Order: sequence, then structure tokens, then C-alpha cells
Amino acid sequence: MVQVETGMSQGDVAKLLQRHRYLGLPVVDQAQRLVGVISADSVLEAVEEKAADTIAKIVGTSSEEVKTRSIAVVMRLRLPWLLVSIASGLLCALLLGFFQDNLQTIAVLFLFVPVVLGLSESTGVQGATIAIRNITLGHVSIKDLGRLFFREVIVGVFIGIVCGTIVGTFAYLWQKNNLLGAALGGSMTLAIIISGLIGFLLPLLFQRFKIDPAIASGPLVLAICDLQTLVVYFGISLAVLAKS
Amino acid sequence: MVQVETGMSQGDVAKLLQRHRYLGLPVVDQAQRLVGVISADSVLEAVEEKAADTIAKIVGTSSEEVKTRSIAVVMRLRLPWLLVSIASGLLCALLLGFFQDNLQTIAVLFLFVPVVLGLSESTGVQGATIAIRNITLGHVSIKDLGRLFFREVIVGVFIGIVCGTIVGTFAYLWQKNNLLGAALGGSMTLAIIISGLIGFLLPLLFQRFKIDPAIASGPLVLAICDLQTLVVYFGISLAVLAKS
Repeated sequence: MVQVETGMSQGDVAKLLQRHRYLGLPVVDQAQRLVGVISADSVLEAVEEKAADTIAKIVGTSSEEVKTRSIAVVMRLRLPWLLVSIASGLLCALLLGFFQDNLQTIAVLFLFVPVVLGLSESTGVQGATIAIRNITLGHVSIKDLGRLFFREVIVGVFIGIVCGTIVGTFAYLWQKNNLLGAALGGSMTLAIIISGLIGFLLPLLFQRFKIDPAIASGPLVLAICDLQTLVVYFGISLAVLAKS
Repeated sequence: MVQVETGMSQGDVAKLLQRHRYLGLPVVDQAQRLVGVISADSVLEAVEEKAADTIAKIVGTSSEEVKTRSIAVVMRLRLPWLLVSIASGLLCALLLGFFQDNLQTIAVLFLFVPVVLGLSESTGVQGATIAIRNITLGHVSIKDLGRLFFREVIVGVFIGIVCGTIVGTFAYLWQKNNLLGAALGGSMTLAIIISGLIGFLLPLLFQRFKIDPAIASGPLVLAICDLQTLVVYFGISLAVLAKS
């Protein structure tokens, strides 16, 4: 019999409704006693709200923002995440400050900071989004997760190698420095792989500790990815270039 | 009478269903002739797909990615956007290359590149998301858009001032250079305001030319925001610091 149990995920209810093309389903508790009826339109509402919420959290605001006309409300919704972004950006500045003294030798590394950060960030956010979508849609079994994790690792390695190779080759051709090309390409590849893994694992960790996994999708994952990327990029590149 | 006209947006149909709590609605053409029936479950499916599509495009992939297990498919879906990100990142590197020669005097500006880019990007993506959500949910009338545009300008100014003030003050206290603090704060404020506007206007422009506005949400808006931010940031900061 097609029925919904109390505690079933939204995504599973939506899938049931779509598979059977019913307009409503009986809801039963664990003892199979009827406790109510859920209609397609209320599921529709819930699915819409969940999607709006995920989208809003990815970009660092709240879904309330679409509904409001008040500028004060918009600012209040965005401010907490804005402060997270500012804090992580200032940490990045302090981190880069350590390299300021021997800047002349590594000036060229600074030129590639935007591209290295940008690609690492986007891989991290993609990993987080895939993990969150799978959690929200109720696709998660341990076996599935293991498989998805493995897939994300491979995808991260491929993306890392593609980006690292293109950017490293560009750097070599432009700056006529093969050590730079190798250091840049290698460190970028590693940073991208790590970001993909952080992005994928952070929402699962949040889910494990009963924190809304969507929170792990936006400014927070960007902050962590940025910091690890700068450490990996400058750490490896300096070590390689110091040998020249 | 509650009915759906052919050509009505998905969002409007969903709103009608929710407002009246009906499980289905008659669909009529412009001459008010009945052409069919739309059920809540098919609207549910459409709404889910649209949301998945928007989320995927924001992060630079396609909603097909959640369904597939194939690594080759994932790579094929992400690669076009990855190449956009790489191209814009390399343009950023070339742009920064112009400042490489007088690096010693402006080394300190490079330290703040991650925080300036990060905040400008997130404001741009937020603007794009708000615009796309409003287009998707069918909220768009010219008057509404004008009001939203005005709101985004004000929000951008506020966010710009908050970020510019905090980061500028931090730079001043850290580097003991009040000109740097002022230049950084001012240029950052301006760059953030511009990014917010670009983010908001790009999806509307795409919509106008019948291109899927969601495409304007992800890597494309990031690329444009990054480039304008570096030009504004280095342009203004160098002009101010050159006077010292």
C-alpha cells in the first residue's frame, strides 16, 4: 500500500507522489495507525521552501529575503554571513602578510592568487551542493555516500589536474619559468582536490551533529577553502621555488 | 473562476494551487477554451526541477549531476563553466601583471586581494540570485523591478560601506597607513556596489534576450565581478597612494 510514515523525509514523500501520480497520501505512524492525510499542494509548498532555503544559504542570505521589501531586514539577514566572509578575508590578508618580506622573489605568485582561489572555491561549493542535494532529496545511505565520496575524489582529481595543467602551462609560457609552472600547477591541483573533499564532507558533518547542512554550503565552505588553498599554494610553491 | 492560462509561469500556477489548496486546475487558452487539466503533482515536479536547475547553475554545473553516477558525465557538465572560470582567472593574472613592476610600493595592496574579491563576488552572486528568484517565481512587473533595483542599490551601498569601513580600519591599524585604509575602504565600497548592480542586472538582460537567466548566476557573474573589482580596487588605490 502506498502510504507516508511520520518522520519520512520531504524528498521521499515528493518522490512517492510523483511516482504514483496521486494527489494525496495517507500518513500513518509507526504502528501503522492513520494519523492524517498529506496533499500534493502542501508537499509542493514544502519543496519550494526547502529549495528557496538552499539557494539562499549557498549565496549567504536567507530565503526570507525574496519576500521582504525592507532594506533593514535584508541587511539583518545578510550581515552574519557577511561578517564570516570579512573575518575569513582578513585572515587571508594576515596569512599573506607572512610572505610580504620576501615578496620580491615570489611576486609572481601573487598574480595567480585570484585564479587559484576562484577555482578552489568553486570546486568546494560544488562538492557542498552535491552533498546537500543528496541529503535533502533523501538519497543518503552509507553505501551511496561512500560511492558519492569516491566519485567526488575522482572528480576533484580530474578538475585539479585540468586546472593545474592549464594554469601551470600558462604561467610557464608567460613568465618563462618552468619551476613556477610546475609549482603552480602542482599546488593548485592539490588545493582543488582538498577543497572538493572539504565541500563534500562539511555538510555531512553538520548533518551528523544535527546542524542544518545547508549552512555548510555558502560563506563557511568558501572561508575554509580559501584559507587551506592559500596555505597549500604558497607553502608548496615557496618550497619548490626556494630550490631554484 | 480559478483557472490556468496557457503561457502562465510555473511560479504563478504553483501560487494559485497553494492559495486555493486545490489539487488540480483547468487550463484554458486565450479564448477561454478548456485545453487540459494541470495537477498539483506535475507542478511539484516542475518546481523541483526548476529549483535544482537554479541551484546547479549558481555553482557552475547542471542539475543532471545529482542523477548521474558517471564521472565522465560530471566532468562534461562542469567543464564549460570551469573553462569560463579559468579564462577569467588568467585574465585577472594578466591584469595584475600590469602592476608587477611597481610592486614594491603597492605590495600591501596584494594582501587584500582575497578579501576584496571575496566580498565583491558574494554581493554580485546575491544580487543575481535575488533577480533570478524573482524572475522564476513570476514576480516581475516593471514597477516591481524598479523597486527591487532601487533596493539592491541601497543594500549594495550599505554592504559596501560596512565592508569598506571594517576592512579599511583593519588595514589602517595593521599597516599604520591611513592613506591605505582610506584607499582600500573607498575602492572596496565602490567595487561592491558595482558588483551588486551587475549581479542584479545581468539576469534581467539575459531574460530580455531570451537566454536562460539562471546562466547569469554562477561563474559568469563571478568572472565579470572579479575583473571590474580588480580594476576599481587597483585603479583607485594606486591613484590615492601615488599622491603620498
